[in-house]
Amino acid sequence: MAMTGTPAPPAGPPAGGIARPSGRAPAQLREVRIERGYTRHAEGSVLIAFGDTRVLCTASVENKVPAFLRGKGEGWVTAEYGMLPRATHTRNEREAARGKQGGRTLEIQRLIGRALRACVDRKLLGERTITLDCDVLQADGGTRTAAITGAYVALVDAVRGLLARREIARDPVFGAVAAVSVGIWRGVPVLDLDYAEDRDCDTDMNVVMNDGGGFIELQGTAEGHAFRREELAAMTALAEAGIAELIALQREALAR
Amino acid sequence: MAMTGTPAPPAGPPAGGIARPSGRAPAQLREVRIERGYTRHAEGSVLIAFGDTRVLCTASVENKVPAFLRGKGEGWVTAEYGMLPRATHTRNEREAARGKQGGRTLEIQRLIGRALRACVDRKLLGERTITLDCDVLQADGGTRTAAITGAYVALVDAVRGLLARREIARDPVFGAVAAVSVGIWRGVPVLDLDYAEDRDCDTDMNVVMNDGGGFIELQGTAEGHAFRREELAAMTALAEAGIAELIALQREALAR
Amino acid sequence: MAMTGTPAPPAGPPAGGIARPSGRAPAQLREVRIERGYTRHAEGSVLIAFGDTRVLCTASVENKVPAFLRGKGEGWVTAEYGMLPRATHTRNEREAARGKQGGRTLEIQRLIGRALRACVDRKLLGERTITLDCDVLQADGGTRTAAITGAYVALVDAVRGLLARREIARDPVFGAVAAVSVGIWRGVPVLDLDYAEDRDCDTDMNVVMNDGGGFIELQGTAEGHAFRREELAAMTALAEAGIAELIALQREALAR
Amino acid sequence: MAMTGTPAPPAGPPAGGIARPSGRAPAQLREVRIERGYTRHAEGSVLIAFGDTRVLCTASVENKVPAFLRGKGEGWVTAEYGMLPRATHTRNEREAARGKQGGRTLEIQRLIGRALRACVDRKLLGERTITLDCDVLQADGGTRTAAITGAYVALVDAVRGLLARREIARDPVFGAVAAVSVGIWRGVPVLDLDYAEDRDCDTDMNVVMNDGGGFIELQGTAEGHAFRREELAAMTALAEAGIAELIALQREALAR
Amino acid sequence: MAMTGTPAPPAGPPAGGIARPSGRAPAQLREVRIERGYTRHAEGSVLIAFGDTRVLCTASVENKVPAFLRGKGEGWVTAEYGMLPRATHTRNEREAARGKQGGRTLEIQRLIGRALRACVDRKLLGERTITLDCDVLQADGGTRTAAITGAYVALVDAVRGLLARREIARDPVFGAVAAVSVGIWRGVPVLDLDYAEDRDCDTDMNVVMNDGGGFIELQGTAEGHAFRREELAAMTALAEAGIAELIALQREALAR
Amino acid sequence: MAMTGTPAPPAGPPAGGIARPSGRAPAQLREVRIERGYTRHAEGSVLIAFGDTRVLCTASVENKVPAFLRGKGEGWVTAEYGMLPRATHTRNEREAARGKQGGRTLEIQRLIGRALRACVDRKLLGERTITLDCDVLQADGGTRTAAITGAYVALVDAVRGLLARREIARDPVFGAVAAVSVGIWRGVPVLDLDYAEDRDCDTDMNVVMNDGGGFIELQGTAEGHAFRREELAAMTALAEAGIAELIALQREALAR
Repeated sequence: MAMTGTPAPPAGPPAGGIARPSGRAPAQLREVRIERGYTRHAEGSVLIAFGDTRVLCTASVENKVPAFLRGKGEGWVTAEYGMLPRATHTRNEREAARGKQGGRTLEIQRLIGRALRACVDRKLLGERTITLDCDVLQADGGTRTAAITGAYVALVDAVRGLLARREIARDPVFGAVAAVSVGIWRGVPVLDLDYAEDRDCDTDMNVVMNDGGGFIELQGTAEGHAFRREELAAMTALAEAGIAELIALQREALAR
Repeated sequence: MAMTGTPAPPAGPPAGGIARPSGRAPAQLREVRIERGYTRHAEGSVLIAFGDTRVLCTASVENKVPAFLRGKGEGWVTAEYGMLPRATHTRNEREAARGKQGGRTLEIQRLIGRALRACVDRKLLGERTITLDCDVLQADGGTRTAAITGAYVALVDAVRGLLARREIARDPVFGAVAAVSVGIWRGVPVLDLDYAEDRDCDTDMNVVMNDGGGFIELQGTAEGHAFRREELAAMTALAEAGIAELIALQREALAR
Repeated sequence: MAMTGTPAPPAGPPAGGIARPSGRAPAQLREVRIERGYTRHAEGSVLIAFGDTRVLCTASVENKVPAFLRGKGEGWVTAEYGMLPRATHTRNEREAARGKQGGRTLEIQRLIGRALRACVDRKLLGERTITLDCDVLQADGGTRTAAITGAYVALVDAVRGLLARREIARDPVFGAVAAVSVGIWRGVPVLDLDYAEDRDCDTDMNVVMNDGGGFIELQGTAEGHAFRREELAAMTALAEAGIAELIALQREALAR
Repeated sequence: MAMTGTPAPPAGPPAGGIARPSGRAPAQLREVRIERGYTRHAEGSVLIAFGDTRVLCTASVENKVPAFLRGKGEGWVTAEYGMLPRATHTRNEREAARGKQGGRTLEIQRLIGRALRACVDRKLLGERTITLDCDVLQADGGTRTAAITGAYVALVDAVRGLLARREIARDPVFGAVAAVSVGIWRGVPVLDLDYAEDRDCDTDMNVVMNDGGGFIELQGTAEGHAFRREELAAMTALAEAGIAELIALQREALAR
Repeated sequence: MAMTGTPAPPAGPPAGGIARPSGRAPAQLREVRIERGYTRHAEGSVLIAFGDTRVLCTASVENKVPAFLRGKGEGWVTAEYGMLPRATHTRNEREAARGKQGGRTLEIQRLIGRALRACVDRKLLGERTITLDCDVLQADGGTRTAAITGAYVALVDAVRGLLARREIARDPVFGAVAAVSVGIWRGVPVLDLDYAEDRDCDTDMNVVMNDGGGFIELQGTAEGHAFRREELAAMTALAEAGIAELIALQREALAR
Repeated sequence: MAMTGTPAPPAGPPAGGIARPSGRAPAQLREVRIERGYTRHAEGSVLIAFGDTRVLCTASVENKVPAFLRGKGEGWVTAEYGMLPRATHTRNEREAARGKQGGRTLEIQRLIGRALRACVDRKLLGERTITLDCDVLQADGGTRTAAITGAYVALVDAVRGLLARREIARDPVFGAVAAVSVGIWRGVPVLDLDYAEDRDCDTDMNVVMNDGGGFIELQGTAEGHAFRREELAAMTALAEAGIAELIALQREALAR
């Protein structure tokens, strides 16, 4: 059920002579686990873990599309994101109780939706909507990248069901999509930041890529000091390698 | 980690000669599992399963009280309830996106809060709030009774932490509280209805009791025809037995 | 216009030797008045008083049904509940100004709706909605039970209008529905609690029954200590007698 | 309890040879009734009727002021307005259920608040807020003018209580305030329009005046064709006479 | 681009021997500028300035009508009003961020909509909606009267486009509509109050008139002491003259 | 008042042999105009134009900080973003009327806030909040980058006022911040996309940089096909040059 990511602990001294809080090597992912069929009702249901970050990603198929697409013969892929109130160190107010989703939530779910639409031929999907609900059960940094990586697997499972029931004739999913964060931690470019590293790093960048090595989204923010062209290049190189690993793990999970 | 509830399948023909959809005997609980420490950050974190119903119950302790209690030297215990959009057969709109919690949600979380306050001496708790977040990961009937039963275990875990850290001197939790549903299914009183039974039954009653055999809450609704005094008595008797079993399971889980 | 409920003051010492704050005998209702045609526009309009509790119940008929019933050839009965800001001892914030109905309001209006649907054949009603608006002008305990008892009379008036105008052929209302509260006050089971009694009692139970003596809803809450099986039986017996009186008063009002 | 307004039916043919739908003379008020002490809890509670328009006006005193007045040693007078869903010919959606007060509601309650503040010395009131809740039980035109006229009586009752309990030393209410509508109906200036007249008239003006004959508010709207200077003069003259009558009725009610 | 309103400074001493804060004569408008085509996308786009008050008025044409007008073959004219957060001396919270429009905003936009509908034959407009968005870039008193005066010009520009594209056959706009404020400042009736005068005056009245000298709306509020019949007459006379000037300026702008 | 950006039209054929819809060379900015003191009340008020995109940026200084900063001796810089309903080709619903800000709005205002905080020493600012309101009067692509570039100038003006009034001793603004969009249009990397180009391009990236050549934010989205490492490098190089120009224009405007 669980699958291991980059397993081996780094041999020798860490790059730059600096130990990450997590003890990982700069280019090392956290242990990644992808569990399909985590709940019963959804057409796709995946629990993904990036270390202590755990996100439940479900894919729901509905035979309707938003108003702006009605009658156009194409489908829609969208995402919603939520965090359980106590997924974090201190309790966050429940967004349903507050009466609105915060800016961070809306920003993340828009990102997840765009990322997944980048690997779907919406004409082949037909007039259907696939909603990817990504709910964070436990947060330790990188919830949006885990959500994208897990939602892709849930999406594929939902589409496989449509194909198996012959509701659609051809697979609308092309390629694969995964995401990871990179950052500059005490001057060293590092991959897949956990909460302790994220809180303390100078730059934080989320990268979404496909299995052809193309960039789908790139969102970098300087937290401490502005980052330079070379740092950008180092971070994107780390992300490329990390995402290749994640896509391999997605494939392995989908082959089980 | 998991603990089994009433394990043995019923020997002989079912009472009344009628088979429940679940195949259980009228007085038989579903398999109940209680997993403590399910997530890492909350002071108490319990995943409870009543068959296919799975609810994550976390207890969060905060050193503040609502405005109406400030300066009175006593604490507060409250609950919030949510359901992931795809916990159910078809996707429900996310309450955070809709901008408000529905009437059913508010009704359930008020019930959970009242039930748990019934076993806490709020003076001994001091000026603290314990919030019990009950989030349904998968729904198959009985989510509110599972939530109450699991929230009690999370509450005890949170209070044990306060005692261990010597933040409070005496245990404010007295007795135990658990809940179960009972109903009249095709004329037969049955215990712990799953979704298929609930949808199809004439009366549905949720019962909350303590370990002294006293009733804390009783909420019965006639769905098909009105129920009679004798049926009420039969249902409460079933509930008494079921809750005794559940309280034994809570104890066992807390002893591990 | 007004009709008297249980008129005679209790002779002899009160049961259990304890005087209720209201001076009533344990099984004595408050004076109940039911005034039909209180306002002019609604198809049914009833002002009901349970002592100082006064609720205006109107029934509005509309030739439409909610989306989930469209085209099914059956009708809907629903309720809304409100309290004027100064119906109570101290002013409550207006829910319209606050921007949402509170949990208590939603819970009560859901209860009223379920109770009234229990005496309506929705097929016979046809594709119509009857909305029962129950607005509390003055509160002194028992507003929800007064609302249910009054809303039944308003509902019958609205249905009589439909029959008189030959919009429907057969009466969709079968039987009668009324409600009352019961409680344990200083150890004694008492009927129809006013605010002073309610605030101070150990258990509070709202009971909805029909004229066949069947239970439609039962909602009991232990406020002080948990209640026992025998207390439950005593309370339901009190409720049965009280509701029989209320149903007689409804009949009398409808016969005028 | 009830008091009669302009009682005598008009002798002779109506002005301009045109009969108003209500059969009243152009300068004739509807029957006005003012009932004090209508509900029990509020410091002032008045049911006012302008014909079939019935508004419950309560005055609530609270020992606090809005943030912008804190520490300034003066009080506040404010108003809220609501209409029961079935106060009107067809049912209006409940504003609490819709989640916001409409523009018409906000406009009316701002008008009522301004009108009543015009007769209160807020320094003499001290750091208190008096909230005037005006809830329309039945609507037949002129709800805002009835509300202002009734709220004045409720306000005086609340202030009398403060004086009686010696919470304030001097009466902060100076003079009296009342309101009435006037309009041009088929070319004839008429006083106190009911719903049938209002729907059908060319100009509708609400006038608030004090007992010194001064204007506090004047809000005129041309509905059909624009009105002329002479029509404005005729309407304000009608309003002056009508308001003088209303102020006499307020005095009479307050003297009982 | 800019056009000057009442240009000449007042000769001789001010009326009543009192100088207005603005130095203007009592009957003198501020400098009025009307700039058409201020933005590019809207069918009509006018920046209007009444002195330092600057309002951007756009007219948007859409081929749809609100639900209550569907299929009736007539159009709708409506308005929305907003103020940029820092249009005023101190920053106001953004209404979009607060989650609702305030009572003042709703009141003003209802006024603007009614005023403009008074000069449109909605049958000739056909099933179209023209929305007049009036956004205050800088406020110095009189924003609602500037908005009405500017919105009229934007409306005419939008209708000219419909006529030019032959979407409608006949001009639905009849006459002209403009608005101005008048007040009693230290006992002297004055025209077109700026913020400093408005804050400090006894009565404030907004007047909307057409080019036939008829009143469309009149909204007067006593701020200090109640105003008398003679003061009302003096104020409306001032408004008549001021609006005649404004309508001449509208014509001049539309002729360019 | 206005200042010209990259003035000279491109000599010779466009790069890649492809003409941009705007006729600009790939590395050419639109005409940029920065007008300080556009409105009167705000501490800083700048109208910035990137071609037909026009954004009003005001900086408001308030002597308070959000709750999470109270008592820490440091200030806050935040932003709000809005678009007038008819800033765009077709009318957008007003967010204040809809009752909430959309995800795009929240995302943009969070970006503007982060960007500006990157050049402010919040300790030197003291317990003050500077709010940057960026309201789009007319949209033609690149509204968020124009907003950031203009808000910087408004921020500097507000801070100069604080220094001039000696409310703060040392300038808390270090360096400069500006933003521009870049994209891949028909295979050619281009700078500063207008609406027609943006709608039609394969990749769209917003870049925020400081005057030291460091990156503050980078947000790239593949719209058509995923972009490659080389394209990323080409786009960031274009952005670097464009932002250097913009920072020169900011300086020039601030020197006037």
